[in-house]
Amino acid sequence: MSRRNRFIKACRGQDVDRTPIWLMRQAGRYLQEYRDVRQFHSFLEMCKKPELAVEITLQPVRRFELDAAIIFSDILLPLECMGIGLEFTDGGGPVLRNPLRTARDVERMGELDPEKDLGYVLKALEMTRNELNGTVPLIGFAGAPFTLASYAIEGGGSRNYVETKSMIYAEPASFHRLMEKLTNMVIAYLNAQIRHGAQAVQVFDSWVGCLSANDYKAFVLPHMKKLFASVDPKVPRIHFALGASHMLKLVGSAGADVNSVDWRTPLDEAWKQAGLKKAIQGNLDPALLFGPKEHLVEAARDILKRAANRNGHIFNLGHGIYPGTPVDNVALLIEAVHSGSKRR
Amino acid sequence: MSRRNRFIKACRGQDVDRTPIWLMRQAGRYLQEYRDVRQFHSFLEMCKKPELAVEITLQPVRRFELDAAIIFSDILLPLECMGIGLEFTDGGGPVLRNPLRTARDVERMGELDPEKDLGYVLKALEMTRNELNGTVPLIGFAGAPFTLASYAIEGGGSRNYVETKSMIYAEPASFHRLMEKLTNMVIAYLNAQIRHGAQAVQVFDSWVGCLSANDYKAFVLPHMKKLFASVDPKVPRIHFALGASHMLKLVGSAGADVNSVDWRTPLDEAWKQAGLKKAIQGNLDPALLFGPKEHLVEAARDILKRAANRNGHIFNLGHGIYPGTPVDNVALLIEAVHSGSKRR
Repeated sequence: MSRRNRFIKACRGQDVDRTPIWLMRQAGRYLQEYRDVRQFHSFLEMCKKPELAVEITLQPVRRFELDAAIIFSDILLPLECMGIGLEFTDGGGPVLRNPLRTARDVERMGELDPEKDLGYVLKALEMTRNELNGTVPLIGFAGAPFTLASYAIEGGGSRNYVETKSMIYAEPASFHRLMEKLTNMVIAYLNAQIRHGAQAVQVFDSWVGCLSANDYKAFVLPHMKKLFASVDPKVPRIHFALGASHMLKLVGSAGADVNSVDWRTPLDEAWKQAGLKKAIQGNLDPALLFGPKEHLVEAARDILKRAANRNGHIFNLGHGIYPGTPVDNVALLIEAVHSGSKRR
Repeated sequence: MSRRNRFIKACRGQDVDRTPIWLMRQAGRYLQEYRDVRQFHSFLEMCKKPELAVEITLQPVRRFELDAAIIFSDILLPLECMGIGLEFTDGGGPVLRNPLRTARDVERMGELDPEKDLGYVLKALEMTRNELNGTVPLIGFAGAPFTLASYAIEGGGSRNYVETKSMIYAEPASFHRLMEKLTNMVIAYLNAQIRHGAQAVQVFDSWVGCLSANDYKAFVLPHMKKLFASVDPKVPRIHFALGASHMLKLVGSAGADVNSVDWRTPLDEAWKQAGLKKAIQGNLDPALLFGPKEHLVEAARDILKRAANRNGHIFNLGHGIYPGTPVDNVALLIEAVHSGSKRR
């Protein structure tokens, strides 16, 4: 077995020769070769020009023994197509110029035709598959409806999500309508990615941890269930919810094939709560990549020990790689995971 | 029974006539009378001039049927005295000009003499006690060592706490030394507050939720245990850890008399995990105060139902009141809690 099929097999809970590993935001600012491209192109340009997206997607796969590639893109691109506007400010994060606040705003939000509106992502997937030529599988992705809704309502990142929660509580029908529209969009977008070459898809619910378990159950879970019931099951569907330790069981009930967890709850405990029948992905704190090496390796081994070579574990971080991460520590982590999880 | 002793009795797990309520950051920007003072004084000035701090402390107690007052102050004031520098930028949050990064920085950090360095807080406590004249008890507070350490290391607020975690992993001895110094400071500061009139004290661990349960156990819990073993038990000691749903049992083992929880985990479940032998405080999402009224009342009733009039529940929010909160909703919440929890 090799990098060719380890990741997909683990997603399916099948036998593997060692635990596969890929890293959220593995193509990013911590890599010199990424910064070399970034120097001459805006972030949005890098997302929108397939040849650039392909190059960046391949950078970490060339450099490291990763078991999967993930297409370089951004979860907010669909919102731009839906008329909410999108800019990336220097260091300040994304800004959405036309935030949604009222029922009318929600109704006015455009629809997305992935083939037409995000053809550049689909093209990049096709080209990357071609370049990868079967060496490692290619992952597509989308933002989860709640996380996209929070960006669309707040107009950017947020600390307390007061506008989002205000819509949830004051205008529950509008919020559900927004979630419905976004869910339909994500389903169509992910299925298009699968048609164009994605061999697995991940849904990023980065900000859903701001909700209570009860609000998650009432306002998010039904949409996530519909989402996972509607995305083509011929590829593994991965569900990542950050900061969701208080509702892992609910998150696990949404219907994904793989639950991806952050670093807060120990892996064995998180796996039990999210469901042992599903595969699990995670859960190293990305801050550990800043060193020291012995501590990083020790923490990786602890996760492997908790996974106990049980089928269905994909090693990953609990959040995307932070800028400034030392590159040699990334290589060390991958080596430690592979060498520390040999089955035969 | 009345506002005079309901809160303290609940902290002690004793019989009360109805569930007491106070609100984190109840003296703040959402009040017109606060903004009237703020217009003429900087935030630091308001903390440092006892007559201003007293006035602001009393504002919400005058306006609402709250069961406790909490002294108006800021958790970062001791760091300023310890040489780390402190400024409040307009809207951008606190900035600490001399962040700690090395073992030498930690050693160089000054000590705090609460009577000398923070005499204005102690004076404000005395004056407020006098003004309150027994109507409601007065709460003192301090930041928890981890939260203060994260501010001191990062130089302000943070999203991912990479510098803090880097010190934890790369320089564990320095981090423990920093925690030790801060713990000793907090103990001395809280005991001074008690000597000068605080009838309960709360420790705010606002950012500790960024740590895994295992890191909390290794790097924070021993210091919290020492803290609660050393703060005078003649007054109730309250422990608030935000975003700590993944480690409520550990937090509950630190030794406080009251565990204060955010909104993520339902109250009955959080109480069970933090320990039924201790009192519990919480856990309404402060975003609910933005309305609508029916939903706010319903959510408050749900918490009361989960507490089931069991002795040892203090109603509170799961985080400080947000600026912009409608004042009449605060009054409504207090009324709903009192009327919905009458024991006889």
